[in-house]
Amino acid sequence: MPELRQNKTTREWVIIATERAKRPEEFKSKEQKKPLPEIKPDCVFCAGNEDKTPPESFRIGLNGKGWKVRVMPNKFAALNPDAGNLSSDTGIFRKMAGYGYHEVIVESQKHNAITALLPENDVADILRAYKNRYTFMAQDKEIKGIIIFKNHGAAAGTSLEHPHSQVVAMPVVPHQVRSRMDIAITNYDDHHECLYCRILKDELKEGTRIIAETGHFACFTPFAALTPFHTWIFPKRHSASFGQITETELEDLAKILRLSLRKFYFGLIDPDFNYVIRSAPTDSCDASYFHWYLSIIPRLTKSAGFELGSGMFINVSLPEENAEFLREVKTPD
Amino acid sequence: MPELRQNKTTREWVIIATERAKRPEEFKSKEQKKPLPEIKPDCVFCAGNEDKTPPESFRIGLNGKGWKVRVMPNKFAALNPDAGNLSSDTGIFRKMAGYGYHEVIVESQKHNAITALLPENDVADILRAYKNRYTFMAQDKEIKGIIIFKNHGAAAGTSLEHPHSQVVAMPVVPHQVRSRMDIAITNYDDHHECLYCRILKDELKEGTRIIAETGHFACFTPFAALTPFHTWIFPKRHSASFGQITETELEDLAKILRLSLRKFYFGLIDPDFNYVIRSAPTDSCDASYFHWYLSIIPRLTKSAGFELGSGMFINVSLPEENAEFLREVKTPD
Repeated sequence: MPELRQNKTTREWVIIATERAKRPEEFKSKEQKKPLPEIKPDCVFCAGNEDKTPPESFRIGLNGKGWKVRVMPNKFAALNPDAGNLSSDTGIFRKMAGYGYHEVIVESQKHNAITALLPENDVADILRAYKNRYTFMAQDKEIKGIIIFKNHGAAAGTSLEHPHSQVVAMPVVPHQVRSRMDIAITNYDDHHECLYCRILKDELKEGTRIIAETGHFACFTPFAALTPFHTWIFPKRHSASFGQITETELEDLAKILRLSLRKFYFGLIDPDFNYVIRSAPTDSCDASYFHWYLSIIPRLTKSAGFELGSGMFINVSLPEENAEFLREVKTPD
Repeated sequence: MPELRQNKTTREWVIIATERAKRPEEFKSKEQKKPLPEIKPDCVFCAGNEDKTPPESFRIGLNGKGWKVRVMPNKFAALNPDAGNLSSDTGIFRKMAGYGYHEVIVESQKHNAITALLPENDVADILRAYKNRYTFMAQDKEIKGIIIFKNHGAAAGTSLEHPHSQVVAMPVVPHQVRSRMDIAITNYDDHHECLYCRILKDELKEGTRIIAETGHFACFTPFAALTPFHTWIFPKRHSASFGQITETELEDLAKILRLSLRKFYFGLIDPDFNYVIRSAPTDSCDASYFHWYLSIIPRLTKSAGFELGSGMFINVSLPEENAEFLREVKTPD
């Protein structure tokens, strides 16, 4: 019989659709993606085309032999530091200038690089670029919220093949984030503990949804996973903001993120996915009640009218089975 | 320069990405969909296969010559009236039995029927079936929320070609709906008017986003449209619940819904889309502050990491241009 599970961080319900649930193996891609060339001459992110992008805002160099990671403003930026900060509120039609930052993090010189297959320190370099850009953007007092994300594959909404991530810094706190903060505050006031610390503690104790664990992080399938193989990576140390990650923790995050992506890559045959780093609004980075984390969303199903109309999700898989499957995927090393 | 617009019903911001905005014509499909057969022998919803579905819960007959609309429980129901109502709340892991209803409304005997191309009264029959099922499910005191929706095409998440809609009745109010109710209540207390009545009034006055209007309904592009060609149909009479629609209004809704879908069909060449009917929780159907409506979401773009991580949307089109385009689409009649 079907089951409703509540995501305590959003108070939203998920329907675990037991009647139509698929086994983990059924989500494997039927075939490998078409191989890409190492360098694609018309790709602006490929080595050799550095002059075709907007000017770099950050780079991690490669001992004088070019670069490992490059960051620059998005050529078609969704938000722009030159947009000014005019706002108008004429009755029901409220708008603001699209002030903010929208940058692209190019993760490799190579067109065909895949995060899961990079050496651990190269993954750490990508995270170091995230931290640099987060820190830079958070210093701007007009910025209230920062989202770091990666889109991998067409089903995940990317139009560019070259491996890259994006950072968007906004002059508003998204209502969705505000709502999570409110829920976390109420929980803190009721229980005098961070809701996310509690989730992590209980997940580690229960164990059935744990995928992997390192010294500083745990990777698990949420109890109320929204979609098949939805995955969370939580830092063990309480911290509301990704900006506060230490270098030791960052190296450890590179390790567990790479391992998780390898489990997806080898276990499900390179699925399309998004990942996002959820962090507190920039003016709440010391909050006792909120906890930053990384969420991976493989795009194995499509949201339909039910999800759009209710905000609830129907998950056609069992979180415990997915976690067990990923836990047991052996990755070459 | 980009612009942020606030959706007052959700308090969420939308980025109108002027730097990468496309003209309305650019969203047209490049080719017509592959034609489907009138009857597909292995389709359980086709005429002749009535014995292959679960037993009917409702039917609109065709003067003794079979049926026009059939309704039955979904064979792989996400919620089930036999699920009981056990609930457990062990700390962080809260779950409930998946009690509820999940029915399929088969909209035609024909596999290749398309709502936009049906006669007006056939569209009204589909809406009559919606109202019948809404009324039936709302009588169950365990039911708190009801969602009616249609998925058209693969990008809209449908796996079955035969034209159909679905109704899901849930034992919980989705948090997303609760949040809209809270916002609407605050607005009512502050302004002593229904937020949705006000939006409708101001949209009609401004006029630039209106697509079509009938005696009882208006169809328009929301000021803060989430995605290209996102469209709302609002009833002019204040009413919180779709269950309260009168027969006269229902016939008028059939007219404007059909016209809207025809504008999509002919103007954008049969795009994939979802539509949903948003209605108040069943215990708030007389609310002064909330207003039911129908939302159409053409699936012309994919949500990516930014949308998943922030709850905000980046709309790569201009709502006013989309409305003008649809307003001017001529549909054969």
